[in-house]
Amino acid sequence: MSKQTLLRNVRPWGGAPVDVLMADGVIEQIARNISVDEAMSVYEGQNQLLLPGLVNAHAHIDKNLFGRPWHANQTPEPRRIRDYVDNERHLRRELKLDTRAQSALEVQRAIGAGVTHIRTHVDIDTDAGLAHFEGVLATREQFKEALTMQLVAFPQSGMLVRPGTVELLEEALKMGAECMGGLDPSTVDRDPVRHLDTVFGLAERYGVELDIHLHEPGMLGAFAVELIAERTKALGMQGRITISHVFCLGMIDDAYLNRLIELLLENRINIMSLGSGASSFPPLKRLHAAGVTLCTGSDGVRDTWGPFNSVDMLDRVKFLAYRCGFRRDEDVEFLLGIATQGGAKVMGQANYGLAVGCAADLVVVKGDAPTEAVVNLPPRTLVFKAGKLVAQNGESGCKVQDNLLERFEDA
Amino acid sequence: MSKQTLLRNVRPWGGAPVDVLMADGVIEQIARNISVDEAMSVYEGQNQLLLPGLVNAHAHIDKNLFGRPWHANQTPEPRRIRDYVDNERHLRRELKLDTRAQSALEVQRAIGAGVTHIRTHVDIDTDAGLAHFEGVLATREQFKEALTMQLVAFPQSGMLVRPGTVELLEEALKMGAECMGGLDPSTVDRDPVRHLDTVFGLAERYGVELDIHLHEPGMLGAFAVELIAERTKALGMQGRITISHVFCLGMIDDAYLNRLIELLLENRINIMSLGSGASSFPPLKRLHAAGVTLCTGSDGVRDTWGPFNSVDMLDRVKFLAYRCGFRRDEDVEFLLGIATQGGAKVMGQANYGLAVGCAADLVVVKGDAPTEAVVNLPPRTLVFKAGKLVAQNGESGCKVQDNLLERFEDA
Repeated sequence: MSKQTLLRNVRPWGGAPVDVLMADGVIEQIARNISVDEAMSVYEGQNQLLLPGLVNAHAHIDKNLFGRPWHANQTPEPRRIRDYVDNERHLRRELKLDTRAQSALEVQRAIGAGVTHIRTHVDIDTDAGLAHFEGVLATREQFKEALTMQLVAFPQSGMLVRPGTVELLEEALKMGAECMGGLDPSTVDRDPVRHLDTVFGLAERYGVELDIHLHEPGMLGAFAVELIAERTKALGMQGRITISHVFCLGMIDDAYLNRLIELLLENRINIMSLGSGASSFPPLKRLHAAGVTLCTGSDGVRDTWGPFNSVDMLDRVKFLAYRCGFRRDEDVEFLLGIATQGGAKVMGQANYGLAVGCAADLVVVKGDAPTEAVVNLPPRTLVFKAGKLVAQNGESGCKVQDNLLERFEDA
Repeated sequence: MSKQTLLRNVRPWGGAPVDVLMADGVIEQIARNISVDEAMSVYEGQNQLLLPGLVNAHAHIDKNLFGRPWHANQTPEPRRIRDYVDNERHLRRELKLDTRAQSALEVQRAIGAGVTHIRTHVDIDTDAGLAHFEGVLATREQFKEALTMQLVAFPQSGMLVRPGTVELLEEALKMGAECMGGLDPSTVDRDPVRHLDTVFGLAERYGVELDIHLHEPGMLGAFAVELIAERTKALGMQGRITISHVFCLGMIDDAYLNRLIELLLENRINIMSLGSGASSFPPLKRLHAAGVTLCTGSDGVRDTWGPFNSVDMLDRVKFLAYRCGFRRDEDVEFLLGIATQGGAKVMGQANYGLAVGCAADLVVVKGDAPTEAVVNLPPRTLVFKAGKLVAQNGESGCKVQDNLLERFEDA
């Protein structure tokens, strides 16, 4: 039996104070006043909040600019997705970004912020080949004891419009990507049917999930949602498809939205939303009330697309709450549910949560109520992954430079 | 001659490093390598950014919940302005809020965040009478060496609909309010013409500015803008009127917007915008390009209206940038200009800025470029008001409990 870890005096989701005993990577017992055994590692929760590990279900950890001099963003307007992508490919070469190092810097920060699960889209194109994918694979291996990571083989620069990309994507699936990616089948790839047939075909053949970036606005995006639902049904892939961003769901009339919600439910298609700064975005409360599974994420953090976004999922919840016009604790907690339970469901984490038997992926953070933590964004006091301490006071104990994980408890 | 203060090695607005000499409350000299005199107080800027003092041109410092247990917001939806106001008046009594203490807590935090100027709207109604106004007056006096504060006599609960309110507002103007306030003349006060005639009349009689909250949407709000412009012209009050929020400017068609912009320019009416979480808001870049003076603020921070907002104006700029869809440094700096120069202009601060002769209201903050400070929100390293140090490393040196200001330099 592995060493037990006892976390004393925490308030799960803001409730009454309890002690939590972790063993073999899971929550073994939740009770008041658990007796201390001298074989246990004991941590004091100081009557703070206990949350399940935060889930970033939409990241791009391969292309941040952490640790580099300030990059003044000068991309001229108006900018289409293609303009960002072309600008990025150009700058990537110019800045000589090392994907492994950059992704490790981002993961280290994420662990410090209480993130225990990340689904990250990894750029694959005919310029960079599989270099990004290999870098992120190495980072996943390096941090595997501290973080659960899923990799999406993502044709950021387009797929059909860049011959040779499909073969590279397939290679990434063979190398261990858990998820196939897709991107704007009409506006970027110029052929929605062939784009979707290709990415669905690869996902089915390799038995992986499919997560499609869909920025396309209004009726064009809504048409793509229909095509995605048709293919999900035809291939029997219900429950394995996520559509990310889907701004179009915030742009169509009520009757059509209801029809699309039916399609999402029939095919158990998940929706990933970050909200949006200036654009419309999906009506999250309405989708949730209808029964659609929702998740959220960081998107690209501090990269050539723009300087914003944060590895901290509480920061994402705060922004989403602001953007949804939510002010009540109940509504903010609904969004926090998306950044925890929702993301875990999308990532297929069956034993996730704050109950006995769940994986001991836990975050201790200061606050009377969950909403107070969202408003104040205090450094995470303690972060546990599979029952082991991986961060303390906002700092990950996982070093980037070494190939070995060193945890506080080992020090 | 007062003691001189030398700030060494700072980069004004991200430019080349200089030294800044302050004397008699103003910037005396800006040069490379100013010689140190032993009579000077000397501070090391560590090659960080130098910004002018941040200007919060729209605050409600009389009603925050700082220093109190977490207040779970439970106001049911849908909520009109009147619902928030009624809820607030009810909770204010229940929580026995001491306006003087609460406003001092907010001002102390604001000074720590580099805010050197605040225009604050102070609730005046037939329930509380002038208690809030007296509390904020005392706080203004207490912090007068650290902060320039303007008080707005604000009928938050309505004016015509609550007989006796006009007399209280007039009393506040006699007691020293620099500004008359107004609020939604149609939806709250039920009579746009009589409401505006009354607030304009008081502003003219007492020779003060006028700052009107206008949440009214679409054509109703736009009609109020027209009425405000007509009265500004008739009374010759050009340049003395500010309209706050003005969501309607983001809701009307292009042709009508152009006509309203002409009215704003003809009458030199200022616009205050915080952006908005979920609602439309004024097109800031377009208004600025047309020549309209813009300012921004905190709005109510952590109060019964909702848990969000921050005393930190860089945080406001970050949110505004996100909400405007800005990603370029140039655009973020335009917004920072609103939170500095724009606010100072609205508050009538003629000698404001980073040039020789300007008031020595200065903020030193870590960052290569202004946008980096907006993205990272680091604690303010040094804050000077009229050449004297008032905050260091994010902490104000002004104590709330004492009636005297103690500054770091005195300690």
